[in-house]
Amino acid sequence: MPQHTPAEPDFFARHRELLDRAVAGTANREYWSPYPESPSTSVYGEDAPKQGEAAFREQLGKPFEPTGHPGVGTVPATEVSPYGFELGVTYPRVTPDEAVAAATDGIGPWRAAGPDVRAGVAAEILARINAASFEIAHAVQHTTGQAFVMAFQAGGPHAQERGLEAVAYAWAEQKRHPAAARWSKPQRKGEPLALDKKFTPVGRGLALLIACNTFPTWNSYPGLFASLVTGNPVIVKPHPGAVLPLAISVRIAREVLAEAGFDPNLVILAAEQPTDRNAALLAVRSEVRIIDFTGSTEFGDWLEANARQAVVYTEKAGLNAVVLDSTDDYKGLLRNLAFSLSLYSGQMCTTPQNLLIPHTGIDTDQGPRTAEEFAADLAGALDKLLGDPARAAGTLGAIVNDGVRERLEQAATVGRIVHASTAIALPEHPDAVVRTPLVVRLDAEADRGTYTREWFGPVSFVIGTDSTAHSLRILRESVRAHGALTATVHSTDEDVLAAAEQVALEVGVHLSENLTGGVFVNQSAAFSDFHGSAANPAASATLSDPAFVTGRFATLQSRRPARVAEGGDV
Amino acid sequence: MPQHTPAEPDFFARHRELLDRAVAGTANREYWSPYPESPSTSVYGEDAPKQGEAAFREQLGKPFEPTGHPGVGTVPATEVSPYGFELGVTYPRVTPDEAVAAATDGIGPWRAAGPDVRAGVAAEILARINAASFEIAHAVQHTTGQAFVMAFQAGGPHAQERGLEAVAYAWAEQKRHPAAARWSKPQRKGEPLALDKKFTPVGRGLALLIACNTFPTWNSYPGLFASLVTGNPVIVKPHPGAVLPLAISVRIAREVLAEAGFDPNLVILAAEQPTDRNAALLAVRSEVRIIDFTGSTEFGDWLEANARQAVVYTEKAGLNAVVLDSTDDYKGLLRNLAFSLSLYSGQMCTTPQNLLIPHTGIDTDQGPRTAEEFAADLAGALDKLLGDPARAAGTLGAIVNDGVRERLEQAATVGRIVHASTAIALPEHPDAVVRTPLVVRLDAEADRGTYTREWFGPVSFVIGTDSTAHSLRILRESVRAHGALTATVHSTDEDVLAAAEQVALEVGVHLSENLTGGVFVNQSAAFSDFHGSAANPAASATLSDPAFVTGRFATLQSRRPARVAEGGDV
Repeated sequence: MPQHTPAEPDFFARHRELLDRAVAGTANREYWSPYPESPSTSVYGEDAPKQGEAAFREQLGKPFEPTGHPGVGTVPATEVSPYGFELGVTYPRVTPDEAVAAATDGIGPWRAAGPDVRAGVAAEILARINAASFEIAHAVQHTTGQAFVMAFQAGGPHAQERGLEAVAYAWAEQKRHPAAARWSKPQRKGEPLALDKKFTPVGRGLALLIACNTFPTWNSYPGLFASLVTGNPVIVKPHPGAVLPLAISVRIAREVLAEAGFDPNLVILAAEQPTDRNAALLAVRSEVRIIDFTGSTEFGDWLEANARQAVVYTEKAGLNAVVLDSTDDYKGLLRNLAFSLSLYSGQMCTTPQNLLIPHTGIDTDQGPRTAEEFAADLAGALDKLLGDPARAAGTLGAIVNDGVRERLEQAATVGRIVHASTAIALPEHPDAVVRTPLVVRLDAEADRGTYTREWFGPVSFVIGTDSTAHSLRILRESVRAHGALTATVHSTDEDVLAAAEQVALEVGVHLSENLTGGVFVNQSAAFSDFHGSAANPAASATLSDPAFVTGRFATLQSRRPARVAEGGDV
Repeated sequence: MPQHTPAEPDFFARHRELLDRAVAGTANREYWSPYPESPSTSVYGEDAPKQGEAAFREQLGKPFEPTGHPGVGTVPATEVSPYGFELGVTYPRVTPDEAVAAATDGIGPWRAAGPDVRAGVAAEILARINAASFEIAHAVQHTTGQAFVMAFQAGGPHAQERGLEAVAYAWAEQKRHPAAARWSKPQRKGEPLALDKKFTPVGRGLALLIACNTFPTWNSYPGLFASLVTGNPVIVKPHPGAVLPLAISVRIAREVLAEAGFDPNLVILAAEQPTDRNAALLAVRSEVRIIDFTGSTEFGDWLEANARQAVVYTEKAGLNAVVLDSTDDYKGLLRNLAFSLSLYSGQMCTTPQNLLIPHTGIDTDQGPRTAEEFAADLAGALDKLLGDPARAAGTLGAIVNDGVRERLEQAATVGRIVHASTAIALPEHPDAVVRTPLVVRLDAEADRGTYTREWFGPVSFVIGTDSTAHSLRILRESVRAHGALTATVHSTDEDVLAAAEQVALEVGVHLSENLTGGVFVNQSAAFSDFHGSAANPAASATLSDPAFVTGRFATLQSRRPARVAEGGDV
């Protein structure tokens, strides 16, 4: 097949070393961070913070118009900063018909380009997204409510690393088989039978990416880049509450595609109003062959049931739990857990909700603590962490939308409050909705109906159980039935840790043990930690691993008799 | 987690070299054959043919009773040799409840054993299946109707190689990530943050294998071994017409599992009568998490639609086509094509059905040939190939069941017959149903409704088209709509070959070009040829590639703070 002749510049050559290093990173799972997480001028340049903020401010109240983007008219502004102002940005309005037609138009040359060229283009897109980290950070902050530093890190370099990780898996997986091979089968008499074979990875087809409100880039880049690098165009359908971070990313992707000589419409933004149903309409189109989704269990399940022509990768809701058995660092445990519950107001798919502790308590280096005492100690740790409003706001960020705020109010009525959710006022953002975490005491048996639902947001339950074995049983049952993104155990007893590991393997959830220092269960590091697991109901994918990319392409072969050196057919 | 302590003997150590070589084979796609295809005493031993046949004869008319197999009572004999006698073998009757309970009972130690131990057990099973190749060959011959040599090769060593290929992919894929890693993140001040992480591949859960009548072992071993090696128990549901080849395989698998210290019920035979609906009942059980299926499009589509809790790998029906444009070896083309249509009476998922040729004809080294002339020449080539009844029977085998025979009769009425299907009498098997291929002339436009259905069996159509471009258009449309396992093109024009390659990539079918010698489109060699393609509707899997195994397991992680050398927590 015709190979793409790389235009100037050759992005693959430019990023070859990075790609090789990234593939090595996926294989050794050690620490590696290609995009510095510090929002520092020494890394990103003296003017980067200023220019990034200016670029963001400049966009407010205006139409966002990527060059040559399909569509007629605009989608009215839908984004409101959780810090209290309307973004006022409008986006191109693209109907599903227009999006499908435009996105699939350039598929031929993109397929013919091959994995190297596609990986090079993807790496260049990521490099330019990285250079735009400050602009994107502001866009993430003012759509998700994340505090600025977190918006920079999780929405910028950490998201970019998740993207590069997907590029690495997608690139490597397509190169598992050679582009060509000579097959030569010895015969009892005469010359061997010989065939020349070609092997070509071919994308499955048009991909649809349905993004979420809280992590528009971190949860989207893996699917976006996995699809793109395996040869598929991508329609990006952002959440109406968090369009801008993805709009900037799409704009950059289109610029790089065009520079490399490809159709920029291989990546399309399909913004919509909350009342539109474009995600559902697009999801069942016969042309849509791949779907990546982050969001509610309800819509994720609907996609899995109805988008049958597509492979569907979902990340839905789960019941993250902490099993408390014993500790040799009680203060560290409380500090660590209080931070986990507070970070971005618990609006992370990885935040623990159910804290399982025997009524009779646990052994600690500070002496035994009953469940009651632990609940009070946790409340104290939260107050200590969040005592200073300015510092608190830097951890909590703002409440992303009214749904979370309403749920938080409802949760305050389901049990005895251990730590009330209180409002924090931000002088510089008087309309921001900032809330401390709510912690409620529940009983493992009496309140089962309450804690076996997900309460997305700053809501956690201290659940009294009969014993650690009982806690592990609840962990097993709740994850098996409802799924989870994370599970945690605290114990000084290797037998308990081993039992928790067995439960985690049985029900298919990743486990964190005895986190008392500077690593938090919420955090999932690219190139080392797997995020989510297709092994439990909370997700149908693990970000990223080979299974996340192998369904996005097929390797096709052609074969013909080999011409031997003498010139005759064998 | 506890690691399995390998019992004597250590199968992994015994087969380590073979496994490494197999992984290399999957990667380089060159010729490699670990299990000799020749049914020769110099390879398999002086007594092997005799003993294999004796083992087969000994089983006839008796209950097949694998040691310790679950179930109550027996399934009455269902198998009739296409060569004209009843096998009279009964099998254990296992209800879906019993099968699910027994198969899942031993999953814990099998998961804990890890990929090396599981791959070693699988390789030992294959070694013993290989040693039983003669016994299995007779069982395959007298359930499928394949001639003996083909039954030996396709049902024996070639099937075993497909099995080993799946073992190699499954083993390698589970080892893409290390069992453990130290993650150490530098901090601006003080010691790095350090975590010790464990990564454990965990099987998705119980697998159901639904086998077919014509290739009970070749089409089953990939799924069986892919599931087993990735940590999953397997319920083997054979076709009622071809139980014995899989029953022998299951018996061997159970023996090896037990010797290695595992529950033999990790592999269970679920034989049934044709009127039972166990496949459908089992397929929708919540415990069944993986399904491999070979058979009708109807039931394959049903499984994909209804077995939503499982990942479903299907191989269904397709419309295999040959595009005839030109050739520099017309005699070779005719000889090769005649053999392809005759081999096992066209009862292969890879046999060409639609032969597309311009009405006005093609250029050949023997001068131009119109479509009419080509049809007559093909009929002549068939007569020449099948002129000697004894030799013909060795190529044709027997008609597998009444369904194929009836379809063959029906096909004789849909167009003008170019080559009639005639009966061949076998003196040694007077009741065998042996038929030569039927070739019918059709028109591309007028007879579209006829040739866009699959006529499984010795039925082919010479379809007159307007031009090669028209032929390629029909190839594109028919494969896109109905799928195909194979496509073929004959041309001396590199532009036509390139155009055919583009069509094949677009619609996702593997292509064979200009086969005029001793390689036939029907043939698919393990470790080099991909079989089927998830990229068109005829299959949802490619046997074997990484996508065929990655959905069968997830890699789960646990992490805890690293103990540094000084003994303190970091």
